[in-house]
Amino acid sequence: MEFNENNIDLETIIKDEVNKYLTRDVGDLPATQQAPLELREKYEKMEVPNKGRDIYEVLKDLNNEVLNYLYRPNHPRSFSFIPGPASRLSWLGDILTTANNIHASNFANATLPINIERNLINYLAGKIGYKIKPAGGVFVSGGSMANLTAVVAARDSQVEMEDIKKATVYLTSQTHHSVGKALHVAGFLKKNIRRIDYNDDFTMNTDSLKTAIEKDIEEGYKPAIVIATAGTTNTGSVDDFTAIGDICDAYNLWLHVDGAYGLSHILSDDAQHLFKDINRSDSASWDAHKLLFQTYSCAMVIVKEKNHLLQSFGEDAEYLDDISSDDDVIDPEMLGIELTRPARALKLWITLQVIGEDEIIERIKYGERLAEYAEEYVKSLDNWRIISHSNLSIVNFRYDNSDLTEAQNNHLNSMAAQKIADSGYAIAYTTVLNNQRVIRLCTTNPLTTHDDIRETINRLYQYINGYEMKDA
Amino acid sequence: MEFNENNIDLETIIKDEVNKYLTRDVGDLPATQQAPLELREKYEKMEVPNKGRDIYEVLKDLNNEVLNYLYRPNHPRSFSFIPGPASRLSWLGDILTTANNIHASNFANATLPINIERNLINYLAGKIGYKIKPAGGVFVSGGSMANLTAVVAARDSQVEMEDIKKATVYLTSQTHHSVGKALHVAGFLKKNIRRIDYNDDFTMNTDSLKTAIEKDIEEGYKPAIVIATAGTTNTGSVDDFTAIGDICDAYNLWLHVDGAYGLSHILSDDAQHLFKDINRSDSASWDAHKLLFQTYSCAMVIVKEKNHLLQSFGEDAEYLDDISSDDDVIDPEMLGIELTRPARALKLWITLQVIGEDEIIERIKYGERLAEYAEEYVKSLDNWRIISHSNLSIVNFRYDNSDLTEAQNNHLNSMAAQKIADSGYAIAYTTVLNNQRVIRLCTTNPLTTHDDIRETINRLYQYINGYEMKDA
Repeated sequence: MEFNENNIDLETIIKDEVNKYLTRDVGDLPATQQAPLELREKYEKMEVPNKGRDIYEVLKDLNNEVLNYLYRPNHPRSFSFIPGPASRLSWLGDILTTANNIHASNFANATLPINIERNLINYLAGKIGYKIKPAGGVFVSGGSMANLTAVVAARDSQVEMEDIKKATVYLTSQTHHSVGKALHVAGFLKKNIRRIDYNDDFTMNTDSLKTAIEKDIEEGYKPAIVIATAGTTNTGSVDDFTAIGDICDAYNLWLHVDGAYGLSHILSDDAQHLFKDINRSDSASWDAHKLLFQTYSCAMVIVKEKNHLLQSFGEDAEYLDDISSDDDVIDPEMLGIELTRPARALKLWITLQVIGEDEIIERIKYGERLAEYAEEYVKSLDNWRIISHSNLSIVNFRYDNSDLTEAQNNHLNSMAAQKIADSGYAIAYTTVLNNQRVIRLCTTNPLTTHDDIRETINRLYQYINGYEMKDA
Repeated sequence: MEFNENNIDLETIIKDEVNKYLTRDVGDLPATQQAPLELREKYEKMEVPNKGRDIYEVLKDLNNEVLNYLYRPNHPRSFSFIPGPASRLSWLGDILTTANNIHASNFANATLPINIERNLINYLAGKIGYKIKPAGGVFVSGGSMANLTAVVAARDSQVEMEDIKKATVYLTSQTHHSVGKALHVAGFLKKNIRRIDYNDDFTMNTDSLKTAIEKDIEEGYKPAIVIATAGTTNTGSVDDFTAIGDICDAYNLWLHVDGAYGLSHILSDDAQHLFKDINRSDSASWDAHKLLFQTYSCAMVIVKEKNHLLQSFGEDAEYLDDISSDDDVIDPEMLGIELTRPARALKLWITLQVIGEDEIIERIKYGERLAEYAEEYVKSLDNWRIISHSNLSIVNFRYDNSDLTEAQNNHLNSMAAQKIADSGYAIAYTTVLNNQRVIRLCTTNPLTTHDDIRETINRLYQYINGYEMKDA
């Protein structure tokens, strides 16, 4: 049987496309760019053709349109969200993984990629301070899935589903909203999710946590899980694991740490002290597609006791006996939700093997320094105020002119953020902290220069000053 | 700052690696190959180096070891599991998607890739027979995630979590086990999952279904969901959606169809009649990384009413008002569990645009014909018996010598399957149907030839005949 695809010179095409990406500099492109309405409609309404279209036409559409209007997570002036400054080694890993279309759900299908996954889970578990035995974990698509996997393991360890309406969970409004979604998927009641106060530095207030737990116990609830954060998305704040660990021990609660963004900083000797006693947690989420410089999707959930994952996701109870033996060969499909899945660990392994841990640490610390530099630079400007100090690699600041109303100041900050995004030069969106709109920079890209930081802030400054004179 | 990676000639390396895959023929490699114990230990214990290793050494490890011992889902003689005969166009899609590291969670970040996702969801929803409005869906990593997403939407539509211990779910032992896992994650009680009898053709027995529902109602349970299957993994059987639809209507149950493997056959005019009334379902799972010839991970969950996904996963109720308007711009993160995720639809779109629907249909039908050919060929052999007729593109048969015991026949079938896998020639594992061990072929690869089928069966035959003479 002759298939159409074989009539296309895909070898030349793939080589040309790869070459295009090897020779381009993403920094020359807009950090973000929105597609016009007519293109949105074109692609939403385009028909799947019966006969197939010329591949060069399709590629023209792709390169000139589809792949042109994007937010670029690996652009050196993408300071919003948590950027995704992916290494090219990770891309190489993707190319090899997808070329082989690896079916990494069990050892029989992909033995060595799964050994590599275990190798990296052990490495990361060790960094958290978990004992490699009995710790364990699994690679997932991202932080949402890591949080969901941990929350289900926590639920099954803490409460019978028949009593779910009594189970309560504790977090703050700084907790990432994927946790709320995970709790919903796992069947926790919305009204049993307690929003604990946070401190001035946006970490969980442990007095409030204790009070809330005691009140719940008194009222007949079953406190089950505390969700702490190692590096909040808003401010990079790291919760106090010593105090929270004490509380979880005292009341027998599961402590999950959402470290999707922040946990990579545990490798940095400058930030390490913030993670003291994190090994008192029961589970942790960690995204390699953020600060370990991987492309999407590459994240991990790690638990202090692998048995907890097996109890929730292993279908075959006989596996449980093998855990303590030396040949604990447990297929990843027994440790998480997915069955068929790509070999997500492979690209991280390639990156770590080739550039080494020292270089990863250098990159993480470089990002920390960039946020500090941004903070210093903002301080030198009139009417600008730091709202949260540089933390890990995030800093929040705000134009705050005392001659203007709060609403006017909010508006100016939003306007400047929108203008710089529209210009394509940089993306530095706002967030809301204590009801004030603030500009937030997350400076994790090793290719970002001091000039990039300074010029971004200068432009924000100029947008606001220019606007003020005419319109404010 | 100078980063190590820039000192490596990654351009040459990536080009060379890509070239290697463009010029190799996967059919020349073993269909599957197990890694020796010393390599398993090597990779499980390998340290992350401080300084980084020479990239050519790492690539040597990768190419000679890690990527050598694999099950190859796209090998023309990989007949086990559901194979993954991925098109090279899909690989091209992966290369472009990962090169751009697309953050496809919301329109602002990846407008056109998300329009393309909606375009394909609409296209597939139309094939199921859902009305494009109000239908909707989202791309996920695989069938497990599709089933989980649907089950949570079904749960939220059918039952309050406070009453979860009364909610019952109906499926057969032929239902894929990812459904059981999804039900567990979503908080359904194991003891409330009813295993309905199946018919001789391995489809759900609808009399038993009705009886079970009525018994549950009498006993005070709340019947909630029926899980039907469009193409079971074991035999390719498609449930009777007319009869099941009637029952679901009568008792107000959610009907979810797991079509991860089989739904692509709805495109084939030869198989279409099997899917009659599938549009009476409320949700469906569909894997593009199976019969739509995509690399892992590329799957979809589609619901008859998009509002059901929004109610479960949309955080912001104000979105619900927009649904019926013309500009229902709903970010994918509001329709599923994941937030940051790759643009999984892009590769499917490239494939469909370039080769067209007719060619996809040809490929699917070619797979159906291959299974029929295998069935005919098996029938020509002594002591071999068809256990389930070629269905979609799956056929099950068995060496069944009436002079031997059941246990001996079981053993011979297993032995032959193991030997052909060990030889690397083909992978054609056994499964268990009605307590008998049977050899199962899933013939979905467009590159598989009739010779491949015949020679695979011949070898299985010879292993058994040779063995029998010496050992049985």
